[in-house]
Amino acid sequence: MLSNKENQAADTTSSKSTSSTCETNFEFKFSSEPTLESLGEKLLDFCKERNWQEFHSPRNLLLALVGEVGELSEIFQWKGEVPVGLGRTFTDNEKEHLEQEISDVFIYLIRLAQACKVDLPKAVESKIELNKKKYPIDKCFGKSNKYNEYH
Amino acid sequence: MLSNKENQAADTTSSKSTSSTCETNFEFKFSSEPTLESLGEKLLDFCKERNWQEFHSPRNLLLALVGEVGELSEIFQWKGEVPVGLGRTFTDNEKEHLEQEISDVFIYLIRLAQACKVDLPKAVESKIELNKKKYPIDKCFGKSNKYNEYH
Amino acid sequence: MLSNKENQAADTTSSKSTSSTCETNFEFKFSSEPTLESLGEKLLDFCKERNWQEFHSPRNLLLALVGEVGELSEIFQWKGEVPVGLGRTFTDNEKEHLEQEISDVFIYLIRLAQACKVDLPKAVESKIELNKKKYPIDKCFGKSNKYNEYH
Amino acid sequence: MLSNKENQAADTTSSKSTSSTCETNFEFKFSSEPTLESLGEKLLDFCKERNWQEFHSPRNLLLALVGEVGELSEIFQWKGEVPVGLGRTFTDNEKEHLEQEISDVFIYLIRLAQACKVDLPKAVESKIELNKKKYPIDKCFGKSNKYNEYH
Repeated sequence: MLSNKENQAADTTSSKSTSSTCETNFEFKFSSEPTLESLGEKLLDFCKERNWQEFHSPRNLLLALVGEVGELSEIFQWKGEVPVGLGRTFTDNEKEHLEQEISDVFIYLIRLAQACKVDLPKAVESKIELNKKKYPIDKCFGKSNKYNEYH
Repeated sequence: MLSNKENQAADTTSSKSTSSTCETNFEFKFSSEPTLESLGEKLLDFCKERNWQEFHSPRNLLLALVGEVGELSEIFQWKGEVPVGLGRTFTDNEKEHLEQEISDVFIYLIRLAQACKVDLPKAVESKIELNKKKYPIDKCFGKSNKYNEYH
Repeated sequence: MLSNKENQAADTTSSKSTSSTCETNFEFKFSSEPTLESLGEKLLDFCKERNWQEFHSPRNLLLALVGEVGELSEIFQWKGEVPVGLGRTFTDNEKEHLEQEISDVFIYLIRLAQACKVDLPKAVESKIELNKKKYPIDKCFGKSNKYNEYH
Repeated sequence: MLSNKENQAADTTSSKSTSSTCETNFEFKFSSEPTLESLGEKLLDFCKERNWQEFHSPRNLLLALVGEVGELSEIFQWKGEVPVGLGRTFTDNEKEHLEQEISDVFIYLIRLAQACKVDLPKAVESKIELNKKKYPIDKCFGKSNKYNEYH
């Protein structure tokens, strides 16, 4: 199972109190590498080496993405509610499986972006800026009602 | 609509010949910034500022991801087959919408990884290495049969 | 909001005790009409009257199905765990919305079956028989571990 | 592989001409039995016999549905466009697999409706009536633009 060292210290027990849940969640950081640019290149090389480009049309990749989202859902389907950080609800094998399925979704999302010529890093950055305008802090702070209305 | 300059030059007409399709696809590069690490931090800040962490449990985020994959699918649902690079099958407005929906899927995937304490950059890197072993070049080169059997 | 009269009596409060949850669930019956055969005919007529058949290829319908599953997921995404029968977790408006989205998923599933020439009533009957063999009662009774292993 | 006899005669070659595609599609009929009411009862019995009701909460069933939609998508993911009736794009084994996966989606959709106390036959009938109003024939006839705008 993958992990980055700093985060493990923060992996406290799955307390149900809101405060500790948030704290744990907000201490989590992704590793600085590989970057999206680098992952995109790795995946193009992988595909090119196998001469699979003819299979990788946008709608084929989209359906493959849906397939992987299905596999990700299967991991969670009989679990009932799961706490932030997973707590004790996943075995080590299940966590490893989860990391692989999240990665498979991501791989096809990157490939779909490439096949549609969408510059994923810049597109996401712009969407986050747009969301800041759609969900102004003063109207949305801690209110699930408002939150639901916005969605 | 977002784009990175270098890629636009490569956005040739949507020829149906396999060779040009591949060529176009493999010239595409993501921008070097923002990185996954940086996007992860932006999204945690966004969520923290709005005090939304209590809504962001793993299964809530997973269902939100499924919702966004649905919105992405709706863009493609009546289009029939779409070429790599999209060709002339999307208007500028549709391309902008596509960039936003791909980004929304990505945003919830990042948030889900964070809520599950999965170090997304390292997890994907490992999965790509695993896939290299699962799909050896000599057995998989250009063969859709082999490809399908492996899946 | 739709409902069949007999079921409303059984719609007791959303007790969290397992026994009452099961009881409520197992008293629920679908109306005897319309049948699947009749719904299939209605949907073909609907499509034929609008001359939409050219849009209804198998993969177009599949992506439309994914889109509707996304809309269904959005109803549940911020709710946390929801009891059998929904209890007090849904307003009347939300229940009506839920009925519409479940129906939309079903409509595209019927249309997909038609477009693939799958005789849905007989196919499901056969799959239930197959599942009886795959999940023998003596091995699966009340055991979530076993249940998960079978999946 | 399941089939109903009458339909097999109509399973002509997968002509790409629109007219024959439509004709074939509109001759297809589901068997008159089992009905939705009967399938609902079979599935409740199946679940009750195995004492699985505790696993079948609405969100668990929804995620199981997403999982099955993923498996259905995997069947179509590398196929490119597929004609109405499937033509020669599926082997007999693949058709049997398709029938099973469509059935699995349907099984969890029925169980989800039951767990939410949605009277599926009546809900779908009402939604079809609503769609007739949303998509008036004179505005929607054969126009994909209109069709897309309505969605």
